[in-house]
Amino acid sequence: MDLDLAPVDRAPTYELVISRLKNEIFAGRLRAGDRLPGERQLSEQLGVSRASVREAIRALQALEIVNARPGNGPTSGLIMTARPRIALSNLLRLHVGLASYSVADLMAVRVSLEAQAVTTLVAKDHIDLDGLHALLDRMAAPGVTPDEAQDLDAQFHLSLASQADNPLLADMMQALRDAIATSMLDAFRAQPDWPAFAAGIVAEHRAIVDALEARDGALAVRLMRDHVEAFYDAVADRIEPGATGATAAIGDPEA
Amino acid sequence: MDLDLAPVDRAPTYELVISRLKNEIFAGRLRAGDRLPGERQLSEQLGVSRASVREAIRALQALEIVNARPGNGPTSGLIMTARPRIALSNLLRLHVGLASYSVADLMAVRVSLEAQAVTTLVAKDHIDLDGLHALLDRMAAPGVTPDEAQDLDAQFHLSLASQADNPLLADMMQALRDAIATSMLDAFRAQPDWPAFAAGIVAEHRAIVDALEARDGALAVRLMRDHVEAFYDAVADRIEPGATGATAAIGDPEA
Repeated sequence: MDLDLAPVDRAPTYELVISRLKNEIFAGRLRAGDRLPGERQLSEQLGVSRASVREAIRALQALEIVNARPGNGPTSGLIMTARPRIALSNLLRLHVGLASYSVADLMAVRVSLEAQAVTTLVAKDHIDLDGLHALLDRMAAPGVTPDEAQDLDAQFHLSLASQADNPLLADMMQALRDAIATSMLDAFRAQPDWPAFAAGIVAEHRAIVDALEARDGALAVRLMRDHVEAFYDAVADRIEPGATGATAAIGDPEA
Repeated sequence: MDLDLAPVDRAPTYELVISRLKNEIFAGRLRAGDRLPGERQLSEQLGVSRASVREAIRALQALEIVNARPGNGPTSGLIMTARPRIALSNLLRLHVGLASYSVADLMAVRVSLEAQAVTTLVAKDHIDLDGLHALLDRMAAPGVTPDEAQDLDAQFHLSLASQADNPLLADMMQALRDAIATSMLDAFRAQPDWPAFAAGIVAEHRAIVDALEARDGALAVRLMRDHVEAFYDAVADRIEPGATGATAAIGDPEA
């Protein structure tokens, strides 16, 4: 008589290691900033080969869950990551590249988050208006280049998100910005009348800051939506993926 | 004379392989649904060991950029992933576990995205109102359990996001839901008067659907915000991480 045995369904060992480490995180026993035991110690504790531990850790590094810090001190080694900004950015950028998401999709989500940020801000006692105006002064300076303006524009929007005291909101905003950074820069560079275009962006930003100062949330939200949507309409043909695919790799934080 | 040479700064080979594959994505030469060459072919083309190729692919699998499909047919093998829902969920859940984000952070972002979804929906000619009412009928059925209600609640909110025709919005919503799914279920189960609590949720959902049917976007957004925030206020002490850390692993899609 022949036995009719189905194959044993067994995940690769490194996946079991990942699963065990994830459960430690979900259970709150591994927190951001904690240091993982070394490869040998993990291998002994878990009863698996060092190769399996290494593979698991590489996968967690790809997810930006674990960061390797050089050196031998107490803050070196494999540290649990505090914020997945780069992982989020990478994921979004890759999926714009894979055409899972269009730039229009990203813009619509960005508008929602920007609206959330300014709504939160107008409810706060203190807003760093001086910091925002200082960024806009730099952006309004004669001779500002598209590259400088793109960077200052990012800082302006990220400052609003950061001041809203919601790290997920700020990280999402950063990721969405990063995902379209090179496309935006291409669009800036292609403007036939760059100084006028830059001045328009600064004026729209100033109006948003004024609305924040007046604690007029509805106006600030409306101005922000108009600002992002007008920008997108003006440059949509240049920032859709495909149009800029060849240069998008420049901004790859891991390239 | 001794030469004083600094060490060569060289990324591990598997990282170079990842970088090359990412650049193919950014350049639009690898799209969702495409099949990667096999391990041997990649190893020959890139001039690296098969072990390096394997490590790179495992890291890309951890990021849900590549999916392994079993079998030998034309749709099997290593396929470029179409949607990073699971990767986004994992990332958010892990970072709730790592205490990078609080459930309050997630809820605030979720409210923004829900508002975006209903705003988009009221501008559409067709909304699947019947489908939404059918879900609510099932949620209003006598004897509905917290587990069933949680699932139906998720389907309701995801249906709104999906109908907004923005895959990123839908994927973010799914990821945010997944990240707090077990915490929400704990909160449902702990309600002292579950039938009344469930009826309240259904009534709030019905009001949102009515506002959508009337194409009253402002009302729909307000009702949605009130609904999510009221729910959060009612159960906040149960769904903050730490309170539910021990059970959160149950819902791990990879556990």
